[in-house]
Parts: sequence; C-alpha cells; structure tokens
Amino acid sequence: MKEKLRQEYAELLTSYLREKREDQLYAAQQMSKWMLEQKIPPEEMVSYHVAAMKEELENVPQAVLDSFDFLIEMMIGYGIAYREHENLLHRQK
Amino acid sequence: MKEKLRQEYAELLTSYLREKREDQLYAAQQMSKWMLEQKIPPEEMVSYHVAAMKEELENVPQAVLDSFDFLIEMMIGYGIAYREHENLLHRQK
Repeated sequence: MKEKLRQEYAELLTSYLREKREDQLYAAQQMSKWMLEQKIPPEEMVSYHVAAMKEELENVPQAVLDSFDFLIEMMIGYGIAYREHENLLHRQK
Repeated sequence: MKEKLRQEYAELLTSYLREKREDQLYAAQQMSKWMLEQKIPPEEMVSYHVAAMKEELENVPQAVLDSFDFLIEMMIGYGIAYREHENLLHRQK
C-alpha cells in the first residue's frame, strides 16, 4: 500500500519535472489530501520525495541528499502536531 | 522576524552539512518546535530550506530546485490541516 503511494508520488513528480504543467501541481495538492486521509505524516512524505529524486534524477549532489536528513528532522515536529490534531478530532467524535 | 528565522535555519543547516553531528539534528527538532509556536506553516519551512540550499550549496541541479515546487505544493495540504488544528485548539479554549 505505502509502496504504491511512494510509486505514485515518484510518477507524478517525474511527469511534473518533464512537463512543468500547472495541472500537475494541482494534482500534487490533490494527492496530498489523499495522503493526509491515509495518515501519512509529513516526514514520511519528504522521504518519498528523496526516494523519487534518487531514482529519477542523475547527479544529485551528496550535500543535497544530506540536507534532506535535516529537513526530515524538522518535519518530525510538524508530524507530531498533525498527529495531535488527529487525536483531538477523534476525541471530539 | 521571519528573515531572522530563515537565516537561523540556513546557519543550522550549513553547520549540519559541514559536521553532520547528531546534536545538530536534535537542534533542528528543537527549532521545528519553535517554528510551530511561531505558526510557520510547513510549506514555508520548505521554502526556507530551498533558499538555504541555493545560498549555501553550489551546483544544485535545476531539476532538484524544480522538484521543490512540487514538494511545496504537497506541503500546502499539510499546512491546511495544521491551521485547522490551530483553530480547533483555539475554539476549545
């Protein structure tokens, strides 16, 4: 399931990088809604991004890849806030 | 204010890329908490990341920079969920 999601992310990113169409960015926004529904935390989404970049792009400098470790760490804080939101919604039901 | 935050993000990222120490990743997590308190949405944090990469790294391929437009678009969905969380907390007070 998550593997499929990761693959779809990679496919959409690749077609965006090839064609840079507005409607592909719109599709990305739609996809993020769906990822939220699937409770994918933002740090995991960033890890899909790194995996897709490694697969699809050549010559990504090591420093760029390293910088993602840092970004993922930052995202973990946001992921925690997001999970709190989920719990809050759950408690209200 | 935001300019200062962007600058601190860039400084921390740069020192991490130079030294790759665990405690710098820990500092990143602490910084993300502070950013959350300042209500910086995740898409804005990713834009700080891009700005820092452009400033600090040489030869970042254009496709990598383009890929961030896509990642930011994905993050907007998460940003919306985060703002809903804020509103919910506010209503409960």
